Amino acid sequence: MFITVEGLDGAGKSTQAQILAQNLEKRGYQVVLAREPGGTKISEAIRNLLLDPRQETMASSTEVLLYAAARAQLVEEVVYPALQRGQVVICDRFVDSSIAYQGYGRGISLDFIITVNHHATRGLVPDLTIYLDIDPAAGLERVRQAGKTDRIEGETETFYRRVRQGYLALLEQNPKRIIKVRADRRVTEIAEEIWSYVERELRI
Amino acid sequence: MFITVEGLDGAGKSTQAQILAQNLEKRGYQVVLAREPGGTKISEAIRNLLLDPRQETMASSTEVLLYAAARAQLVEEVVYPALQRGQVVICDRFVDSSIAYQGYGRGISLDFIITVNHHATRGLVPDLTIYLDIDPAAGLERVRQAGKTDRIEGETETFYRRVRQGYLALLEQNPKRIIKVRADRRVTEIAEEIWSYVERELRI
Repeated sequence: MFITVEGLDGAGKSTQAQILAQNLEKRGYQVVLAREPGGTKISEAIRNLLLDPRQETMASSTEVLLYAAARAQLVEEVVYPALQRGQVVICDRFVDSSIAYQGYGRGISLDFIITVNHHATRGLVPDLTIYLDIDPAAGLERVRQAGKTDRIEGETETFYRRVRQGYLALLEQNPKRIIKVRADRRVTEIAEEIWSYVERELRI
Repeated sequence: MFITVEGLDGAGKSTQAQILAQNLEKRGYQVVLAREPGGTKISEAIRNLLLDPRQETMASSTEVLLYAAARAQLVEEVVYPALQRGQVVICDRFVDSSIAYQGYGRGISLDFIITVNHHATRGLVPDLTIYLDIDPAAGLERVRQAGKTDRIEGETETFYRRVRQGYLALLEQNPKRIIKVRADRRVTEIAEEIWSYVERELRI
């Protein structure tokens, strides 16, 4: 089973992905937890390039291709092998992030993003996607408080509003795959709601 | 005018690209000479990743996407701006290299490579491509003598034979754009032949 966790920066994705992994492990599942961009030696090197605040002049097409390259490596080296071993893979961000951020956020051709990523992942689609929905201003505030100022996160609230619109559009287009979870609540409350969806999906 | 120089490693591309640039500058042309992968700060960083012999486990799809990412940056930051200023751009390798090396050499889907690169370059096609044709064994020997053992060049002769077949297929498909020049001759002889084609193209 392949589960992805999506949402704006500051929505609490990493925390929820970790809790979900622990909950699954408690029930005896073998879990592989990966974050994007990254998750392999090569992908982490690409991540460093992507999130380097000095790379101000990066062309938007370059950005799309680098995310897809990091993703291709993660899929081939980690995700497919784990799924073949019967493990559960949880991924903190996946293709939806590229569509929401680069496509809706930056206005890059959706066709370009979708085509490139379809090839990069050999058509891999998550079984379940948890979308953590947060108010763009609140998300931005959390990111700022955490002192993170990498290249991608140094964006404006207007940008984050467009990204959220992207996620909501994806949600509408994929009602069976994507579950929207309100992220402006206590961590444990969110985790419980996520668990209920995963339980149902796993038919535990 | 956009000119690319193509061929196997060891064919003498860099040397010929430099001589061509000098010849054009002597006639008063402003020339931008770029090498692939590389040519911008971001692309050079990607180049380092691609040619690092330690990255043995790189997935073939990752490799295609990284080359395309480096190329996208070069095209947006260097090639298009120079062409708009009316300068001549000479590029040591371009899309044909990906088709020949990754496609024919490694057997990666040509459709994938062509689609990704079409997007990465916004459909940019060279006005003239000089293909330096060399016997695969001879090229490999030259590379070895030069002591270059990066990840890509550490390939076998069989691989180089497939890459050459790729170049010959491209030549057949693009007889107007691609000129085949025999590279098993003296540097000045090759340079003179190349200059005759460029002169004709420039209608000097």
